[in-house]
Amino acid sequence: MSKVKKENASKLQIIPLGGLEQIGMNITAFKYEDSIIVVDCGLSFPDDDMLGIDLVIPDVTYLQDNIDKVKGFVITHGHEDHIGALPYILKEMNVPIYATRLTMGIIEHKLEEHGILKSTRKKVVKFGQSINLGDFRVEFIRTNHSIVDAAALAIYSPAGIVVHTGDFRVDYTPVFGDPIDLQRFAEIGKKGVLALLCDSTNAERPGYTASEKTVGKTFDYLFEEHKGARIIIATFASNVDRVQQIINSAHKFGRKVVVEGRSMVSIIDIAQKLECIHIPENTLIDIDEIKNYPDEKTVIITTGSQGESMAALSRMANGQHRKISIGVGDTVIFSSHPIPGNEKAVTNIVNELQMKGAEVITQDVHVSGHACQEDIKLIYTLVKPKYSVPVHGEYKHLIAQSKIAIDLGIPKENVFILHSGQVLELDDESADVVGKVPVGAILVDGLGVGDVGNVVLRDRQRLAEDGIVIVVFAIDKASAQLISGPSIVSRGFVYVKESDALIEDATELCYDEIYEALERGITDWGKLKNIIKDVLSDYIWKKTKRRPMILPVIMDAEL
Amino acid sequence: MSKVKKENASKLQIIPLGGLEQIGMNITAFKYEDSIIVVDCGLSFPDDDMLGIDLVIPDVTYLQDNIDKVKGFVITHGHEDHIGALPYILKEMNVPIYATRLTMGIIEHKLEEHGILKSTRKKVVKFGQSINLGDFRVEFIRTNHSIVDAAALAIYSPAGIVVHTGDFRVDYTPVFGDPIDLQRFAEIGKKGVLALLCDSTNAERPGYTASEKTVGKTFDYLFEEHKGARIIIATFASNVDRVQQIINSAHKFGRKVVVEGRSMVSIIDIAQKLECIHIPENTLIDIDEIKNYPDEKTVIITTGSQGESMAALSRMANGQHRKISIGVGDTVIFSSHPIPGNEKAVTNIVNELQMKGAEVITQDVHVSGHACQEDIKLIYTLVKPKYSVPVHGEYKHLIAQSKIAIDLGIPKENVFILHSGQVLELDDESADVVGKVPVGAILVDGLGVGDVGNVVLRDRQRLAEDGIVIVVFAIDKASAQLISGPSIVSRGFVYVKESDALIEDATELCYDEIYEALERGITDWGKLKNIIKDVLSDYIWKKTKRRPMILPVIMDAEL
Repeated sequence: MSKVKKENASKLQIIPLGGLEQIGMNITAFKYEDSIIVVDCGLSFPDDDMLGIDLVIPDVTYLQDNIDKVKGFVITHGHEDHIGALPYILKEMNVPIYATRLTMGIIEHKLEEHGILKSTRKKVVKFGQSINLGDFRVEFIRTNHSIVDAAALAIYSPAGIVVHTGDFRVDYTPVFGDPIDLQRFAEIGKKGVLALLCDSTNAERPGYTASEKTVGKTFDYLFEEHKGARIIIATFASNVDRVQQIINSAHKFGRKVVVEGRSMVSIIDIAQKLECIHIPENTLIDIDEIKNYPDEKTVIITTGSQGESMAALSRMANGQHRKISIGVGDTVIFSSHPIPGNEKAVTNIVNELQMKGAEVITQDVHVSGHACQEDIKLIYTLVKPKYSVPVHGEYKHLIAQSKIAIDLGIPKENVFILHSGQVLELDDESADVVGKVPVGAILVDGLGVGDVGNVVLRDRQRLAEDGIVIVVFAIDKASAQLISGPSIVSRGFVYVKESDALIEDATELCYDEIYEALERGITDWGKLKNIIKDVLSDYIWKKTKRRPMILPVIMDAEL
Repeated sequence: MSKVKKENASKLQIIPLGGLEQIGMNITAFKYEDSIIVVDCGLSFPDDDMLGIDLVIPDVTYLQDNIDKVKGFVITHGHEDHIGALPYILKEMNVPIYATRLTMGIIEHKLEEHGILKSTRKKVVKFGQSINLGDFRVEFIRTNHSIVDAAALAIYSPAGIVVHTGDFRVDYTPVFGDPIDLQRFAEIGKKGVLALLCDSTNAERPGYTASEKTVGKTFDYLFEEHKGARIIIATFASNVDRVQQIINSAHKFGRKVVVEGRSMVSIIDIAQKLECIHIPENTLIDIDEIKNYPDEKTVIITTGSQGESMAALSRMANGQHRKISIGVGDTVIFSSHPIPGNEKAVTNIVNELQMKGAEVITQDVHVSGHACQEDIKLIYTLVKPKYSVPVHGEYKHLIAQSKIAIDLGIPKENVFILHSGQVLELDDESADVVGKVPVGAILVDGLGVGDVGNVVLRDRQRLAEDGIVIVVFAIDKASAQLISGPSIVSRGFVYVKESDALIEDATELCYDEIYEALERGITDWGKLKNIIKDVLSDYIWKKTKRRPMILPVIMDAEL
């Protein structure tokens, strides 16, 4: 199966199907002749204007149209923005998955929840190991990240080698496993790398990302400082290393540990089975046992560090948690930074916790999982790619990385800031955007995948803003006489009990309009609805300066 | 009118009617015997869950109940969170207003918009001047802030002196006017101050707040660096000093200046009339003239630094601005920090601007308008209050200031973190919370003040989340026969064209339920509605895992 570079070789295509110009929904297709491989298959979380939407997954029409060529999903690590869309996409196309151990453990848990674990082909890959997928060979290279078992990928194609970092940081002293395999990056760089797809998330930040172990030292210090307090620590559910370090400090200071929050419990469970976390015996206790220990002998590790309203910490803060209530003597540590957009939610919880009497620590108990500028320079310098394709980040982050690449001597014309859907075709000679494939965001709301589109979202926006006013009346089809109504019902518009007069006047107005329209012989109910809509909308705007949705409903009554 | 301390003196009451545990809606009543004065009368902006609400004003029932005692509103400065509720409250109670020159200029503009300028009594007060209001005397002391003419207040009562800082910072080299009158703070401190109400906004931040003038130096540097570019600078509409400094740099570099954004134009206009800003001749040009000048000879100062979707900068970024379009060669400077909650909106605009090709600068072109920890310590040390009452800020900020006060030697029991509505009664002997007055937030939506309450908000939330499903049918009252319908209409629920089957099945289900209920002789339409609601709600949840609002409407048709 080994590939020899052909005389008249084809070009390699890199096609991001999501993940550019946005955080999340990472998915990139690589195509060489009749082989396609897909790196990652993530979801993203809804924007503020996607009312009621649970999550967003990529449109994979391009893959469906080329399904005979698709050899597999190659996954870099187990975060939602890299694996979260898999269960939805796999229901549409049964394609094998390749990932490292913990990543696969987390994926399997998801597939099981969606009832497609058994029907999915999957293979756990070790670091250093390669898999052959059609014309491609893909090697998994160890990196560090805020989740264990993160991999970069060396993608070997007849047109050249592409290195994809996935999300990564450089950690010389990781908590679990080995540091990022810089030697291998260098070796591959020596061979000659066509393109580097590198994580841009922290490309605006100067300097280096600190080691995860520095947080462990901070925990030791904080445990020492707060010896008399119950300690509650909120962090990301998937940050197994962080949990490991909390457990280490707890063990050192003779405290019992409770893990709280569904997603965290499940990931720690998987990590334990795969031996990615080491929990000393008699350290972990059940939440129901906590009452048997004095407060200063316990630590609660919890989800909700982003202020998520349904997470365990929120429920503790607002007194809705069934088993833990916060008060004086509690020290709550946020071992996290707010993800952009969550700042206010986090602040609200900090305030609530303090009002309950807790001491709250939010500063300097976190390190990022992403490489800062100097780390990015290191990777570029080891890999020495011909072309640079910044990935993973908002547009401003991609721009920031492109500046780094150019500073390092990569010619400006060899740096490609792609948009999702663009087809970048490249080989040793040249690289160009040669086309565009369909891409998009598919909204998931409850069980519905893609049944909420722009019309529904616009309606929700309007309903959220000023509510709805419904005008119902019945007309006898035969005689074209109003036989019931109009009645006006509203929701989310005004407090009806105090707006009697407004509603009465509006009803009278509608009555007059309907009566007159019927007199004039209008029988096109669409036209009649529009008349009512216009008249009522104007009236309500004049009286309230609001624009509720106006919904006339005409009943054809047959007598 | 001068007051002599009585033998058997009453106590002073401090009653915050808003502004604690929240940003905005600052309003505090001071009561001594039959005199009440009110410091500030601000609005706050709606929380994320207050869907469709434009702004929030304080409930002033307490003042209305004591209207014969209320001597006046004393205003510290012209920001919305200190003056924004005035037009609404003044419509309910005609009470005179006291403020410094620019503050009054801005208030007058507001009152004019609301048509109550002439009917409102008002008096411009100079720094150092005192006004007598019943048993109180109030002295205006010059401070510095991110708006010109900000004042602290020394409130003299027979029970003692209270110093209220308003929002402030310490600026030794302000752009306009003099530095904060530290000598006067010291003099009053020497007399003996009962209580200090001090701005907490930056109480978590160590060090000192830098002078506004440092931003001017940054502008000069940026203008030098971007000589070939059109420069667009977004900042707060009311930051007259900032605008002054941009104009200074523009003048120095021979650029013409356009001011864009309704609120900024109006405040600069007021500031010019009151000579709080000095604009060299031939510097300001109209937006329509900008096309007559080369890009590198122009500066556009604009609103929208918080990512507000309707502001000028947003419209430029998304190509909706009628007169300015952004592209390569533009340098956009954010001379601001995102207010908590606005981070994502700001980031989105930064990305959009960069996608259009603009260079965007967001770092280090702003200083805060609020005192940091060392500045706060300075004021405490000058004023030496017996009691400390931290104000202006979220709960965590109040806590942070209380720690500073305690560090400075104020006994813990003399520090009062109040909740809105609490009545703090104090004199030289003692201080205690002795009661509570009604307080609350009144929602303003369009012309409606207070007609949107929890019910309406809950409905909007539900409508926003999953939309509405309306079931309409007509029943002949006499025969209790279904004579039309049921028809199901939905909005914001599913894209109906692709959900025909679901709606058809639901309609049939409703039909069966209605038919059966009428067979059973049910004539209580409330009961019938509940049956339909339950059945349909269950059905939809089972099929979609969504919970739209279900609204059955029954028409009584009389044949």
